[in-house]
Amino acid sequence: MIGGGQLARMMVPAAIELGVDLRVLAEAEGMAAAIAAERVGDYTDTATVLDFAKTVDVVTFDHEHVPQDVLRALVDAGVPVRPGPDALRYAQDKLLMRERLSELGLPVPDWARVLVPAELDAFIAEHGGAAVVKTPRGGYDGKGVRVVRSAAEVSEWFTAAAEDGGSGALLVEELVDFRRELAQLVARRPSGEVAAWPLVETVQVGGVCSEVIAPAPKSAGRLADVAADVAVAIADGLGVTGVLAVELFETVDDRVLVNELAMRPHNSGHWSMDGATTGQFEQHLRAVLDLPLGGTGTHHAWSVMVNILGGPEEGQLVDRYPEAMANHPTAKVHNYGKEPRPGRKVGHVTAVGDDLDEVVYEARSAAAVFQD
Amino acid sequence: MIGGGQLARMMVPAAIELGVDLRVLAEAEGMAAAIAAERVGDYTDTATVLDFAKTVDVVTFDHEHVPQDVLRALVDAGVPVRPGPDALRYAQDKLLMRERLSELGLPVPDWARVLVPAELDAFIAEHGGAAVVKTPRGGYDGKGVRVVRSAAEVSEWFTAAAEDGGSGALLVEELVDFRRELAQLVARRPSGEVAAWPLVETVQVGGVCSEVIAPAPKSAGRLADVAADVAVAIADGLGVTGVLAVELFETVDDRVLVNELAMRPHNSGHWSMDGATTGQFEQHLRAVLDLPLGGTGTHHAWSVMVNILGGPEEGQLVDRYPEAMANHPTAKVHNYGKEPRPGRKVGHVTAVGDDLDEVVYEARSAAAVFQD
Repeated sequence: MIGGGQLARMMVPAAIELGVDLRVLAEAEGMAAAIAAERVGDYTDTATVLDFAKTVDVVTFDHEHVPQDVLRALVDAGVPVRPGPDALRYAQDKLLMRERLSELGLPVPDWARVLVPAELDAFIAEHGGAAVVKTPRGGYDGKGVRVVRSAAEVSEWFTAAAEDGGSGALLVEELVDFRRELAQLVARRPSGEVAAWPLVETVQVGGVCSEVIAPAPKSAGRLADVAADVAVAIADGLGVTGVLAVELFETVDDRVLVNELAMRPHNSGHWSMDGATTGQFEQHLRAVLDLPLGGTGTHHAWSVMVNILGGPEEGQLVDRYPEAMANHPTAKVHNYGKEPRPGRKVGHVTAVGDDLDEVVYEARSAAAVFQD
Repeated sequence: MIGGGQLARMMVPAAIELGVDLRVLAEAEGMAAAIAAERVGDYTDTATVLDFAKTVDVVTFDHEHVPQDVLRALVDAGVPVRPGPDALRYAQDKLLMRERLSELGLPVPDWARVLVPAELDAFIAEHGGAAVVKTPRGGYDGKGVRVVRSAAEVSEWFTAAAEDGGSGALLVEELVDFRRELAQLVARRPSGEVAAWPLVETVQVGGVCSEVIAPAPKSAGRLADVAADVAVAIADGLGVTGVLAVELFETVDDRVLVNELAMRPHNSGHWSMDGATTGQFEQHLRAVLDLPLGGTGTHHAWSVMVNILGGPEEGQLVDRYPEAMANHPTAKVHNYGKEPRPGRKVGHVTAVGDDLDEVVYEARSAAAVFQD
């Protein structure tokens, strides 16, 4: 696995239980997945990645940032790369993603490629006076995304995009009038088998995932079917292997539109570690190893995950364990082993049960113990 | 943790999720818990164990074989040892255990300390012509336990016991006419808090645990209450910290008698990793760190665990993954990373659900894929 963050860390327990020897190429010493770090090195350096790849049978990722030329060098060297560069480029470049999903006839917001401010202003004018501008590359957790009413608000982004080695274009999308945000996770093997978890509702605060409810309330039936069909169509259409997270908008007029993609385990799937027969980390391993996929049924009617963002102002998460565990004996605490810092995802809490109000309360109040 | 076998290995995922830095003193290179091995060394050597203990805050165990003098040296050096030597001696010496449980008024089979064959023959004569003889120390998985009709069958054990540095005595117990075997697991913190999982039924084959059904069928009510009361009384009475497994007989005349004790996570509790809110490995960590204990409720009506004993005659467990996972997508496979060998516990499979027959079938048939 390239990348040593919390996604790599949470893959380790699944690997241990399956007897899979997980080796991590970490960005730095002491990262969240340090226990599995085979070595520390720069994932943008082809020689480093090729050398690391000699020690493994399959390469996968805890982020989408490995450059295409590095990925292609791995493929050329005969290393199985899952997901492969042909799929990953759609997770790396939002303009490519929008083009491809449109070609596949999948539901996306109105969008355009804009090369100059005048094009952006024209789009804004055609879409009610506001729009969402995104840098095609490098954004995550709300970075590189801005709601604007004029191209002048992102004039420096045009300059930066041109210097990025890309086309210099930005992506602009309609400002979707959505009721809520959803996420559909699926996993796909190279042989084509696909498994879908229940559709979930995600709550974002400041562009960062704060809470996930599984399944999404009032989603049974058409909504769940549409979301699963869309995600499976994307996994097949883009040739994704491993876990694919499809972030969706449920619009006020009951449409489902694709927002973002991630081709790896995703924050919206953390609940599955405690709430589903097969957690996303085990499933990702099974998928990239081309093993049959595990069941995606849930243990209880509801699972709710709440992120611990930032953590305590002083001290560590573990300092709050006595209070959290005494008051919330059924909450599952996941600690990423990271130093608390404002806004940083340092852990999450999951609660499960059959009464949604109780489960939400339990997860939120347990997570709150870890935050000042 | 002293000892690097599968129990230490299965502790690693729980430690990672809790952000606990688990360090193992392993008996040899390449053991099941190698990923967490801080070092390799001899746990019977006081200097080695004391040196290892300098790197940790609390010492615990994946087996009961650390000698009392080593344990006492740790305590004298100010190291928290959980469970401590005063508790562990009852798990190390079955005669001491029988004496102490009898003092506590807990239900045990008729037993006697026998120093010479004539005493053993007298006990046999008083108990219907047969009895169970046990070496006080060193036995596990049916080793050091024999059903005899005459002292002559174990004459060499008297010699060995005398040479073991003990009193030279053997333990003899009535041959209990039992309906089935049960196990009650509890966890206890130094501060005294105790949590009990549901009573389970264990099926032994050749003295080795083969299958566990949680909860034990038809155990609700009096039986479950008695078993939990007995286990809590033992945990309190012996001052156990961490997980305590109490193996029990359910007699044909509806009594519950204590068979054996283990003061660590136990094969009869593996189901809890997949079937309960808090698995035994997480709970053991919480208990030995004196953290509040987690909920012990179950996700489904039934959890069934089947051991993989021996494994394939040729190849590795992973070679059977495609077949096992394709046909049993809901079975949870746990691979201890050990070389297959006849009779060796190399993994286990757990299935959960609400129909006992289906769950038993699923767990057994998934486990069977791994055995010739």
